[in-house]
Amino acid sequence: MKNKKLNKKIPVGILGATGMVGQKFVELLIDHPWFEIVALMASEKSVGKKYKEAVKMWQGSEPMPFHVADIKVRECKPNFDCKIVFSALDAGPAEEFEEKFARAGYSVVSNARIHRMDSNVPLLVPEINPDHLELIKAQPYKGSIVTNPNCSTIGLVIALKPLLDNFGIEKVNVVTLQALSGAGYPGVASLDIVDNVIPFISGEEDKVENEPQKIFGSYVNKKIKYNDISISAQCNRVGVRHGHLECVNLKLKQRVREKDIIQAWRRFSSEPQKLDLPLASKHPIYYFEDDCLPQPKYQRDIDKGMAVSIGRLQRKHIFDYKFVVLSHNLIRGAAGGAILNAELMAEKGYL
Amino acid sequence: MKNKKLNKKIPVGILGATGMVGQKFVELLIDHPWFEIVALMASEKSVGKKYKEAVKMWQGSEPMPFHVADIKVRECKPNFDCKIVFSALDAGPAEEFEEKFARAGYSVVSNARIHRMDSNVPLLVPEINPDHLELIKAQPYKGSIVTNPNCSTIGLVIALKPLLDNFGIEKVNVVTLQALSGAGYPGVASLDIVDNVIPFISGEEDKVENEPQKIFGSYVNKKIKYNDISISAQCNRVGVRHGHLECVNLKLKQRVREKDIIQAWRRFSSEPQKLDLPLASKHPIYYFEDDCLPQPKYQRDIDKGMAVSIGRLQRKHIFDYKFVVLSHNLIRGAAGGAILNAELMAEKGYL
Amino acid sequence: MKNKKLNKKIPVGILGATGMVGQKFVELLIDHPWFEIVALMASEKSVGKKYKEAVKMWQGSEPMPFHVADIKVRECKPNFDCKIVFSALDAGPAEEFEEKFARAGYSVVSNARIHRMDSNVPLLVPEINPDHLELIKAQPYKGSIVTNPNCSTIGLVIALKPLLDNFGIEKVNVVTLQALSGAGYPGVASLDIVDNVIPFISGEEDKVENEPQKIFGSYVNKKIKYNDISISAQCNRVGVRHGHLECVNLKLKQRVREKDIIQAWRRFSSEPQKLDLPLASKHPIYYFEDDCLPQPKYQRDIDKGMAVSIGRLQRKHIFDYKFVVLSHNLIRGAAGGAILNAELMAEKGYL
Amino acid sequence: MKNKKLNKKIPVGILGATGMVGQKFVELLIDHPWFEIVALMASEKSVGKKYKEAVKMWQGSEPMPFHVADIKVRECKPNFDCKIVFSALDAGPAEEFEEKFARAGYSVVSNARIHRMDSNVPLLVPEINPDHLELIKAQPYKGSIVTNPNCSTIGLVIALKPLLDNFGIEKVNVVTLQALSGAGYPGVASLDIVDNVIPFISGEEDKVENEPQKIFGSYVNKKIKYNDISISAQCNRVGVRHGHLECVNLKLKQRVREKDIIQAWRRFSSEPQKLDLPLASKHPIYYFEDDCLPQPKYQRDIDKGMAVSIGRLQRKHIFDYKFVVLSHNLIRGAAGGAILNAELMAEKGYL
Repeated sequence: MKNKKLNKKIPVGILGATGMVGQKFVELLIDHPWFEIVALMASEKSVGKKYKEAVKMWQGSEPMPFHVADIKVRECKPNFDCKIVFSALDAGPAEEFEEKFARAGYSVVSNARIHRMDSNVPLLVPEINPDHLELIKAQPYKGSIVTNPNCSTIGLVIALKPLLDNFGIEKVNVVTLQALSGAGYPGVASLDIVDNVIPFISGEEDKVENEPQKIFGSYVNKKIKYNDISISAQCNRVGVRHGHLECVNLKLKQRVREKDIIQAWRRFSSEPQKLDLPLASKHPIYYFEDDCLPQPKYQRDIDKGMAVSIGRLQRKHIFDYKFVVLSHNLIRGAAGGAILNAELMAEKGYL
Repeated sequence: MKNKKLNKKIPVGILGATGMVGQKFVELLIDHPWFEIVALMASEKSVGKKYKEAVKMWQGSEPMPFHVADIKVRECKPNFDCKIVFSALDAGPAEEFEEKFARAGYSVVSNARIHRMDSNVPLLVPEINPDHLELIKAQPYKGSIVTNPNCSTIGLVIALKPLLDNFGIEKVNVVTLQALSGAGYPGVASLDIVDNVIPFISGEEDKVENEPQKIFGSYVNKKIKYNDISISAQCNRVGVRHGHLECVNLKLKQRVREKDIIQAWRRFSSEPQKLDLPLASKHPIYYFEDDCLPQPKYQRDIDKGMAVSIGRLQRKHIFDYKFVVLSHNLIRGAAGGAILNAELMAEKGYL
Repeated sequence: MKNKKLNKKIPVGILGATGMVGQKFVELLIDHPWFEIVALMASEKSVGKKYKEAVKMWQGSEPMPFHVADIKVRECKPNFDCKIVFSALDAGPAEEFEEKFARAGYSVVSNARIHRMDSNVPLLVPEINPDHLELIKAQPYKGSIVTNPNCSTIGLVIALKPLLDNFGIEKVNVVTLQALSGAGYPGVASLDIVDNVIPFISGEEDKVENEPQKIFGSYVNKKIKYNDISISAQCNRVGVRHGHLECVNLKLKQRVREKDIIQAWRRFSSEPQKLDLPLASKHPIYYFEDDCLPQPKYQRDIDKGMAVSIGRLQRKHIFDYKFVVLSHNLIRGAAGGAILNAELMAEKGYL
Repeated sequence: MKNKKLNKKIPVGILGATGMVGQKFVELLIDHPWFEIVALMASEKSVGKKYKEAVKMWQGSEPMPFHVADIKVRECKPNFDCKIVFSALDAGPAEEFEEKFARAGYSVVSNARIHRMDSNVPLLVPEINPDHLELIKAQPYKGSIVTNPNCSTIGLVIALKPLLDNFGIEKVNVVTLQALSGAGYPGVASLDIVDNVIPFISGEEDKVENEPQKIFGSYVNKKIKYNDISISAQCNRVGVRHGHLECVNLKLKQRVREKDIIQAWRRFSSEPQKLDLPLASKHPIYYFEDDCLPQPKYQRDIDKGMAVSIGRLQRKHIFDYKFVVLSHNLIRGAAGGAILNAELMAEKGYL
């Protein structure tokens, strides 16, 4: 529970602490009621520097707190006392380091894509598939690896979950308008995006099309049986700092009224809300009646950036519906999502 | 033909000459081989001023030419000697003035939406339905009214035309990322779009969903029989100056290979190319193999802004295809499209 | 003092509550420890609507609180029970209404420019000239009028104050890079600023050049004797949402070392800090050693947007220094500055 | 002269042909009446690829012409038949390669900074110091090295030249608002500039402060005697694609009327205009009366991007004047400036 006091906070480390997602981990963990940062790890060129010197441009809205600023950045080695290691590593280093930490007994809660589709690794969204955590019992590590979905997948799957449960979904088409911070730093060159949009993000469409089938899968016989939901995605980069907007078009298995769908979204509440996890949004989903909402600038930060905002639901033909969904890619779609996973693990005794 | 010399250029006027589309008409007509600007008309607050004073910010890439700069802006009255009147009026004034000019004997070539769906008014795209021009014979005017489609419709219908003809189309889903100039000037407030996108453009989705059925309709018994193509649209505004990008997802009536589709696009050529009209693009459609193209910044100006650029064709499931299409909203989607219509009318003897 | 509990909060109203500055007043007053919103006033087209309906796009980072959302917008009439009226009116309506309220006994704390240079009206910056409040004793109103400086003046004068006091200033040249929200809403058209900057803001240079002389003036014989500081300004609009950046170049009356100047800034503290006013920044000025700071995106929100950030101090020639200063135009430069004025008035017994 | 036909075009090569400036060289040379591209050179990772494959994103407004697209990129070696080598190299490789080419007999016309301040290398602006070309006679190379100024220096010195000649200049303060393309590609990260400006460009202020003294120097006794003009600069990066805007404040040696200054600018014409060089702007300087001009978006392309635009001249105090100047950083400030240098050299017999 949010107000639950632990006798002693759980020590955590961050792999890849200097990048965009790494910084967001730091920002969200600074005042965390359960977790306490004890180690910041990054690539060679940062090792040995104070965190404030290793970070090129601190992205937090408040100045970097002193006790974090002076932490010396360590190399990515499992040689310190700590329970959870959050990973904000890119795919390459993630492949190199995450298993090392898991084998050494750490709970690796990763935002990297590399192990997401591994058969014994949960692709965890606490609002959707908390039972997938069971998978880690079969992992060959002394510790464990748990992943969260890609930043463009998360808004979609949370929006779809109540529809899947209540009405059944036949197929989904989604077109994304993704924010710059999704590409990390330095990421997208300014000359590529000022007065422009880019209709391509390498590897992104595959993730949006394939991750939901695992996320919506059922845990049966110690395995995930993939859901057969069919998704097609087109991914675009737009000149927005944070917040992925997605235009969704789908075919439900039954004909329903718009208001039934809106009610399903508004009533949706799940494990993190029930357990009152510290970073859980009050409501997983907010639906806006105003025609021109949601917008990245105005809705991305709702409930500390952990909520998903939906609007513009319209029925086009029988069974065909369209709507717009927005989520904060760096928070709900990356660092915040991973922390929520760790909170669920802590509460459920998986650490 | 492009090089055809007329003994005397055809005098033309522009209604709504000071706005974004009006200025683009002026820019494109300045050196036009067939047409010559003789009258610039605008709303009361501009009447009597020199054009250079009535225009707040000249958008042309070259300085405004002297002979145009000094033209005195007239009121919207059909009282001068001229053959064609291009209309860049908003819907309200268009409703008030266009019919007056048509009744007075002028050929009104309009970019306004107000008469587009009138049963006796051609919704003309010279590459698609040049025969619809026949409709004007049944118009109750001494002159005539001809319209071009909405700026978000035009790229889509040109991209669809070769597919419709060659393979048949069952249904289409389109998500637009539309440029700022589509909203006119001052149009979108900067605070609404810096670090933001807006998932709503008033009235736009209806136009994209309904205009194609008329454009693709067949001229039978002096009427347009609407095509039954089914389209669903979601329209977004993004922080791009010019160039509407559209993510299209469609179901063809038959299974074809990607390369057949690309070939259909590349081979597509039509009336404006055959007649070698002055503003006709060399090819109506360019297909780009590069994964990250087309982009507004880099492809919107191809063939003087009159070509449509396509890329990222992918087959998703049997019969389902997706691709991205781009066109210049102010040129191909407004002033340039209207001028091409007038060129067709001139060449075909409809003036 | 910040934690001082009033037995009963002071009721306040807001004139022009629906615009950019008006909304910022609302946002900053929602949880104010001393003040309580009792009236929201706006122009005719908003009167009678609920505040949430009258506001086109709520700019607050949190959703609009319910108790404010449902307040019915009133007309600008001094006919309700309240002590302070904050004015976010444009110059025109400010001229019409502010004196009416002052005559009716209200303390009008205005962000409008119209009365700033009136001889009996304080142009108040609590860190600089708290004694100017004495002027209101000579005002012919039952209530009073107090103003704060233009949003491009405030950062400059706070940066200059410690230099003026410690070293003397001969002359100042300032070039501003001003944010979009300084122009209100809808304000700057997106087509004017995407891929562009505008080297002109109507009336702005005059304000920056003339207001400091009054602000730095001395209160002598119940009048303000203007300071003779000489300032030249060039004002530019840039595509930033909030935060005015200013490049300052000045000649001091004596030669000093850079570190003396930095020390003067860092040590600067004044009345609002001494009185611990609720909206006072902890430090009025923050100096950054990092070459590329301050930047609007990263420093505008420091100390709730009330602090001024300075960087890049360089000595060019003997007596000539240059530096960069940043302040939040909507907070420190408008609503926040006015509220700080009211807090000073409350604490000093001027209400 | 522009129309002068050479019997045979002069073969030219481009060093660093794939970057922003290199591409601009290519674009401007494609249809050049005197020069013909025979070699495109770049770093190792591009060598051997066709130019169209080596270039990540072609920045030209027209598609890359076929005969250039298929040129194979060579390594930077002086082993081919050609007269002039344009250098768009960064400082590092420029230091490595430019002298090699000069020693091998090529005329190296460079945009790189590395040799600009060398005592025997002209820092050439054909409108200002064509006689500095004499310096190359004293160069120890079989060929030669000629440089053009930094992209933020060029607009300033052209604006100052007529004032220096007519009225004398005591000192100058300049604040720049520089475009993104000045930093090359990928250059400025989008997250650093969306909703932001950066008050720092590494090394830039030094260049603006020091290059003019050489440019305005006099060629005496086979050496450049530096001018003693005193300049102070503050350099900012803004979210504009192309076009550096500069706010200038200066003290003239004599009191003059604004209209005398404007006349001096408008009458200014120099060697490139006299010789009618192909890339010479019709007028080196355009002065705009409109308060809100010049703006990057609207004036940067005047006279093919080779003209300098000025506006907002104001007299502040006796002898003190301020104005705004704009020039295209990639054209006038880089590739175009270098080509104009080469044209001057060709016309004057320095090749």
